[in-house]
Amino acid sequence: MSVETTERRRRADGERSREKILQAAAELATLEGINGISIGRLADAVGMSKSGLYAHFRSKEELQLATVETASRILNAELEPGMQAPEGKQRIIALCDAFFSHVQRRVFPGGCFFASGAAELSTQPGRVRDAIATSYREWNELLEGEVRTAQAAGEIAASEDPGQLVFELNGLLVGANVFFLLFDDEGELDRGRRAVRERLENSH
Amino acid sequence: MSVETTERRRRADGERSREKILQAAAELATLEGINGISIGRLADAVGMSKSGLYAHFRSKEELQLATVETASRILNAELEPGMQAPEGKQRIIALCDAFFSHVQRRVFPGGCFFASGAAELSTQPGRVRDAIATSYREWNELLEGEVRTAQAAGEIAASEDPGQLVFELNGLLVGANVFFLLFDDEGELDRGRRAVRERLENSH
Repeated sequence: MSVETTERRRRADGERSREKILQAAAELATLEGINGISIGRLADAVGMSKSGLYAHFRSKEELQLATVETASRILNAELEPGMQAPEGKQRIIALCDAFFSHVQRRVFPGGCFFASGAAELSTQPGRVRDAIATSYREWNELLEGEVRTAQAAGEIAASEDPGQLVFELNGLLVGANVFFLLFDDEGELDRGRRAVRERLENSH
Repeated sequence: MSVETTERRRRADGERSREKILQAAAELATLEGINGISIGRLADAVGMSKSGLYAHFRSKEELQLATVETASRILNAELEPGMQAPEGKQRIIALCDAFFSHVQRRVFPGGCFFASGAAELSTQPGRVRDAIATSYREWNELLEGEVRTAQAAGEIAASEDPGQLVFELNGLLVGANVFFLLFDDEGELDRGRRAVRERLENSH
């Protein structure tokens, strides 16, 4: 085996263990908080040495930022079926349904990574909070774009303020997420699904 | 000064310092989490010795439960102006407005105590989580009662499911709270106020 091949394999192994660490970190964060994913705690969770983890991440903040990125990738993959729906109103509903589904299937054991991250870090300025805020802004832009498309197609009333409508949809998503978890009741997610549909049907 | 008077004063002082500790704990909890209010951390915050705090609370759990109780008392006092509004639809709007106002004035520096507490503890079964869930159930019952009163008075359509409507209102409250904090933008609270009104106007 050439030196080059060995090096390539070593790098691929490194990538895989980095992925494994970040996946565990994203899951852990929804149970114990993003501040709970210290290098020491995570080393226990994935069965690696602290020094092994330090080889991947230079600081707790680097680890947390990489975790937000991984969570974003996981969420985007979960939302992908929603993106396959026809653009406009149907896509908004499909994206919301994909969101409720990933909460219900506990893709992250503690519900939406970004909702719990926002609740935890909203009063703690810094790069990690900013990364979460940026993810929400991108999500809002995506939904607002779909609202405008739906308005152009006459599916949603032209008088609706897209920012206001997306704010309301997000309230239904974060509300369903937190009450599903707090009351351990899937009925809360059904209420969310119903509310999204009715809000869009009753667009004024 | 009689022994009895001295004893009474000592007790009154104890009550006052207990109140002071719990007020600080409720505020701190919205910044650093309910799990962040350990006796050691709180002793630093109020400038007391750890042993002084142990005299008031036998365990971290007792302290946390007393903190939830204090937060509930603070929130109820904040909602009191809403309770003065005529029952039914007007009272629902006034209660929601009182909620938005207490978030905006940062009565708790990290927004709604119960929203952040629910987000933090929803996946951590125990007495503290149960106390938060109970507070939400009481709030839901209060609002559902007002919805029924409004329905009886013809202010809200009889076809509305009160549980569904209250779920939607709560989504607007928790959404406005978290996005106000995350984006540091009072416009999110205005969106919440507008959404509550429109939801009740468009009752179907």
